[in-house]
Amino acid sequence: MNEMIQIVVAGPRGRMGKEAVKLVQETENFKLAGVLDRKNEGRLLSEVEGFSGVDVPVFTDPAACFQQTKPDVLIDLTTPEKGYIHTKTALEHNVRPVVGTTGFTAEQLDELKDLAEQKGIGCIIAPNFAVGAILMMKFSEMASKYFKNVEIIELHHDQKLDAPSGTSIKTAEMIARQRKEKKQGHENEKETIQGARGGDFEGMRIHSVRLPGLIAHQEVIFGADGQSLTIRHDSYNRASFMSGVKVSVETVMGLDTLVYGLESIID
Amino acid sequence: MNEMIQIVVAGPRGRMGKEAVKLVQETENFKLAGVLDRKNEGRLLSEVEGFSGVDVPVFTDPAACFQQTKPDVLIDLTTPEKGYIHTKTALEHNVRPVVGTTGFTAEQLDELKDLAEQKGIGCIIAPNFAVGAILMMKFSEMASKYFKNVEIIELHHDQKLDAPSGTSIKTAEMIARQRKEKKQGHENEKETIQGARGGDFEGMRIHSVRLPGLIAHQEVIFGADGQSLTIRHDSYNRASFMSGVKVSVETVMGLDTLVYGLESIID
Amino acid sequence: MNEMIQIVVAGPRGRMGKEAVKLVQETENFKLAGVLDRKNEGRLLSEVEGFSGVDVPVFTDPAACFQQTKPDVLIDLTTPEKGYIHTKTALEHNVRPVVGTTGFTAEQLDELKDLAEQKGIGCIIAPNFAVGAILMMKFSEMASKYFKNVEIIELHHDQKLDAPSGTSIKTAEMIARQRKEKKQGHENEKETIQGARGGDFEGMRIHSVRLPGLIAHQEVIFGADGQSLTIRHDSYNRASFMSGVKVSVETVMGLDTLVYGLESIID
Amino acid sequence: MNEMIQIVVAGPRGRMGKEAVKLVQETENFKLAGVLDRKNEGRLLSEVEGFSGVDVPVFTDPAACFQQTKPDVLIDLTTPEKGYIHTKTALEHNVRPVVGTTGFTAEQLDELKDLAEQKGIGCIIAPNFAVGAILMMKFSEMASKYFKNVEIIELHHDQKLDAPSGTSIKTAEMIARQRKEKKQGHENEKETIQGARGGDFEGMRIHSVRLPGLIAHQEVIFGADGQSLTIRHDSYNRASFMSGVKVSVETVMGLDTLVYGLESIID
Repeated sequence: MNEMIQIVVAGPRGRMGKEAVKLVQETENFKLAGVLDRKNEGRLLSEVEGFSGVDVPVFTDPAACFQQTKPDVLIDLTTPEKGYIHTKTALEHNVRPVVGTTGFTAEQLDELKDLAEQKGIGCIIAPNFAVGAILMMKFSEMASKYFKNVEIIELHHDQKLDAPSGTSIKTAEMIARQRKEKKQGHENEKETIQGARGGDFEGMRIHSVRLPGLIAHQEVIFGADGQSLTIRHDSYNRASFMSGVKVSVETVMGLDTLVYGLESIID
Repeated sequence: MNEMIQIVVAGPRGRMGKEAVKLVQETENFKLAGVLDRKNEGRLLSEVEGFSGVDVPVFTDPAACFQQTKPDVLIDLTTPEKGYIHTKTALEHNVRPVVGTTGFTAEQLDELKDLAEQKGIGCIIAPNFAVGAILMMKFSEMASKYFKNVEIIELHHDQKLDAPSGTSIKTAEMIARQRKEKKQGHENEKETIQGARGGDFEGMRIHSVRLPGLIAHQEVIFGADGQSLTIRHDSYNRASFMSGVKVSVETVMGLDTLVYGLESIID
Repeated sequence: MNEMIQIVVAGPRGRMGKEAVKLVQETENFKLAGVLDRKNEGRLLSEVEGFSGVDVPVFTDPAACFQQTKPDVLIDLTTPEKGYIHTKTALEHNVRPVVGTTGFTAEQLDELKDLAEQKGIGCIIAPNFAVGAILMMKFSEMASKYFKNVEIIELHHDQKLDAPSGTSIKTAEMIARQRKEKKQGHENEKETIQGARGGDFEGMRIHSVRLPGLIAHQEVIFGADGQSLTIRHDSYNRASFMSGVKVSVETVMGLDTLVYGLESIID
Repeated sequence: MNEMIQIVVAGPRGRMGKEAVKLVQETENFKLAGVLDRKNEGRLLSEVEGFSGVDVPVFTDPAACFQQTKPDVLIDLTTPEKGYIHTKTALEHNVRPVVGTTGFTAEQLDELKDLAEQKGIGCIIAPNFAVGAILMMKFSEMASKYFKNVEIIELHHDQKLDAPSGTSIKTAEMIARQRKEKKQGHENEKETIQGARGGDFEGMRIHSVRLPGLIAHQEVIFGADGQSLTIRHDSYNRASFMSGVKVSVETVMGLDTLVYGLESIID
């Protein structure tokens, strides 16, 4: 039988925080112990609009929160500044942090790692909690051992400013670790319209599609004699992050150090 | 009940001609009356390697062939030079030509058209007989009346020299007829890797993927608020041309002029 | 130059109504003249939460609304009961209705058609305003003239109760109009797991995928010798309906009768 | 620097054997030492139609072949009966077999394994050498640890008799090892056309599409809140097997026992 995991969520009124509260309530062996919010100190969350029935206390001070609710895990999807303070305070109170951020400095990560190891508890910091995207990158890296030719197509809404996307570049980097630089395509190929062959990343090509209506999609296509292998991830909304948060909460309970990146805990 | 259509195939030993002979034999109301071949004059096709059981006469001279076999239709998938002579001779003998070529000059087309109308019979000349590709282009043109944002991804084997493909450019041209030039994507979008956003054709983007294993594929993606519409054609081998030849043979029987391009007879 | 089209939106606080208000404001030659709402009579819409800056009057009585604002078009995405009253009143005041509903009876449609023709103005009633879905069905019908083999895959979230989807059945019906009943697949094919070959609709197969995360997607795949043609529609959210509403508003201005179904005005 | 691997190919005139000869010739550090053929004993392969320039001796007797050519590896893509004799004889002569077959009995496999271990050399027996298909199955198994909802769509030409395909069932079995039986879809879902929801394999659904033109394709779709992950393999022709043969030849050189199934050597 699985034991109940007591959880504090930071920033419950934010877009991601709201999803996290929902996740905790809908997961069988997760239990919401309290929330950290810059407003509403001393009230019950159920008194805040949009949370009717969620009878847990709201705290503004993280130390007070952790002392009174004694949670196993903190889920923090706020800002780097607050997240850092929350994470540090959590570790000091023997609470395991699961934090979504790209904003911590290397010094902060080192300090938090030392603290986690000193306390002998887990801590997970991840820039991306979409398990499907992590798996797509991981599988692409694995496949590139056997397929030396690959192109990446990433498709996003047309409000996106940069091309190619961060995820497509990270995918290309992971593939590049597995193979020598390789100029793909015919050696005499010729673009009659400039740019048609996409952007060049160490010999592999990345294509960025931008269209209204689209959300966030990526396709990695491997080709070899007589066959192709395609790995595609479609992200439809923010809920896609929650599966990764769930895995992280379950995993952090068994760790005794800080782990950076969801790819490190997925096998 | 459908009447039997008597057919002569030119170039039966070529790659396309072989498929055409097969098509005629496998189609219920088509009947092979004879073949035109620069070799094997006076023999039966069944005596030629690869055609056992196909008991039709082989001719080298087109006039003799048409006089003796009195066919309804000529299928010609040979060269522009021979094709022109075959087509002209066929029309003079009241035989309807179905010809696959991009190589006739405007003068030749005019002359053949006059001849067809004078004889009051049909003639179909088409650069591309893959019905699926024609439909993809036609549907893309239609959709662009309602979706002002579109990108094209074409995928081919990596032995292809030119990018983008002829079909993708033709598709873009057909879309461009339906809309004003429109620079798509965010007006401030920025390529961090040059070429990522593909080739620009009057504001729409074309992306060319080249990988071993692939054959000939194209995807036209339309996006609008909350939705996308995708039209994709996959060509796996030369047999894909035969459905277009079949439609053309059936259609040419009811025409009284020359028609250029399969898109003109598909509705 | 396009003249400005004056528009009243019914039900502005509903999910679809909100999108319709947004559409009218964002379209160059559309102008919001007023709204019909069962609440807030006599106020300005800008005083209602979520509409700051939208300075148009709110009416509860449709007749009063049409008399005072004298709009060209009514957009109604409310309920069949209200929609019927709004539509009838609109026609009586020479306002062209664009109505999204499946709920009108044949008698109601007949009556409204008579009224529209008597007044000599247009009226569009449509069960589905997603232009992409309409085009997918239309293109599928067209393609089935040339491709006699087709299968449909529809993919939805796993909260959907019925399989196959209404759209997939409607698509199959439209294809069936173009061809004789045809049992597809090998005549001796055998299911080792029952149901693997999908649901049978006059010989073509429909496959229903249900997975969490998915929204509403459909793929129509045509196959023939050496090629396949795929038409796919992805619906990501309710905004997808608005492109159809826009086309309808523009089209209804030129009609002098009632038209049912968006497919009738799309060519 | 890679050392040259000396190779004998059995059945060079068969469809797969022909591809294997081509593979050996086109791979930098592979060298063809001879071939095993029931015909043409004593001739050079270059004297056989279709192999001009391939100057290696043809043998009918495997023992004689291995004694004279002293190869490192035997590639055998013939029949189970011949393959068994070839494999056993190869091991006895310290030649490492790479064999594509599903037809060996458990007793034969045990006996060959004992022989390989006794000789201290490698032997690879695999039912499927398409690396892309193996990776698709492997990735699907891995992904099912994180995504509890999955459906499989396999698409083949309409001459295929059985549905679902062997590969789709094997994929489902591998996924089933990673999760408890789970009835997917809505618990009250209802088929209005029987079979629409596909075939049930321990609660996951398999859909079999059959269309002319298609070759062999499979898509495994995982769904979770807000996202989906799709892994697709397209097999266009028999050349797709050769990448797996190549990996096997390279791998078998470092083994000292018999390995069954390509998935065991791919990581």
